[in-house]
Amino acid sequence: MASETQSISGTLKRRGLMFVLSSPSGAGKTTISRKLLDADSAIRMSVSVTTRPIRPGEVDGKDYHFTDRATFDRKVENGEFLEWAEVFGNCYGTPVAQIAQGLEQGQDFLFDIDWQGTQQLSQRMRDDVVPVFLLPPSVEELRRRLTTRGTDSAEVIAGRMARAQSEISHWDGYDYVIVNDDVETCFAKVREILAAERMRRVRQNGLIGFVRELMKSDA
Amino acid sequence: MASETQSISGTLKRRGLMFVLSSPSGAGKTTISRKLLDADSAIRMSVSVTTRPIRPGEVDGKDYHFTDRATFDRKVENGEFLEWAEVFGNCYGTPVAQIAQGLEQGQDFLFDIDWQGTQQLSQRMRDDVVPVFLLPPSVEELRRRLTTRGTDSAEVIAGRMARAQSEISHWDGYDYVIVNDDVETCFAKVREILAAERMRRVRQNGLIGFVRELMKSDA
Repeated sequence: MASETQSISGTLKRRGLMFVLSSPSGAGKTTISRKLLDADSAIRMSVSVTTRPIRPGEVDGKDYHFTDRATFDRKVENGEFLEWAEVFGNCYGTPVAQIAQGLEQGQDFLFDIDWQGTQQLSQRMRDDVVPVFLLPPSVEELRRRLTTRGTDSAEVIAGRMARAQSEISHWDGYDYVIVNDDVETCFAKVREILAAERMRRVRQNGLIGFVRELMKSDA
Repeated sequence: MASETQSISGTLKRRGLMFVLSSPSGAGKTTISRKLLDADSAIRMSVSVTTRPIRPGEVDGKDYHFTDRATFDRKVENGEFLEWAEVFGNCYGTPVAQIAQGLEQGQDFLFDIDWQGTQQLSQRMRDDVVPVFLLPPSVEELRRRLTTRGTDSAEVIAGRMARAQSEISHWDGYDYVIVNDDVETCFAKVREILAAERMRRVRQNGLIGFVRELMKSDA
């Protein structure tokens, strides 16, 4: 019985979600993102549009959609981005069409973005966004992780610490917060949140028809 | 490092939650509740106040708080119950004081109640309530589970089906819905929801002080 009925709930239609991982540099966001994409085939990164030049080995349409500044600006004006940002003179944006269509088809998307991007996403599509913030286990550990990148000057490290703490100050805009004291534990928690959020009634479109069947009295 | 820092996040203060499991009779609510109480020492049933007579083997203050009808009615009038109901002439109520104090201390409570009780709980303490609804895998399976209780007449079974379907009709008042097609799978899902809800920022009081430490620049 189990295998038959598990396939029932497995085939119920579900709306996808936008899983956001934010953290200061040095809190493990990139590691956790990679592990999640490896382990979970139902979630993928959204492909951003960018004005930055293509790098060797990158594939247009896979790593990014590469475009020029004028086209990017026009897309911004037309509201074609769910969120966008300019970083070191290059622009990055998340195209609304791709996401809207994916969510409708039950595709989950992973976003590795900062608090401002998260805020923009939430303003447009609050019910679809699952915002998760990762914290470092201590200020000493944060400093250590930001230091072991080579022979950095005290000034450079202080700058990184200030940026990290600035990002941390927005922790209270997130639904879930995890202290990343151990990568495997943190990863397990991330997967629990994702699993639970997939079970939310508001995402489970397929239940409407399923319950209609349960309500039939002539079965 | 892991063990030291895991103990950090383990000791962070957290507000408890009220985990509600509802389902029609025959969808496995009782089995799942028992398994959860066995497996998870951080959650316990709330002890209800009841006017029903004590039965052999029951302990006052452990199984129920036994009381008389006049006292119960006075508690209702004084708003001392988070939810209450009359079933077959006996009254059952959840005392607000016990729950409020427990939540404050980080205690999670399990509620095995119907949609009306869930609605009452949510009206009073929405942010603390995690309402989960279990559905049977099919109407045929529901009928089978409601039938195998002995040699019941068609009329008795029809009555049970009608009550079950009436309860099912309120599935859309719940945050999470699980199709219980397999007990172990369903139980795993219940535990994922509970784990995720415990990670919600709004419950993690202890993070406020923790983040304050992270923001210190002189570390």
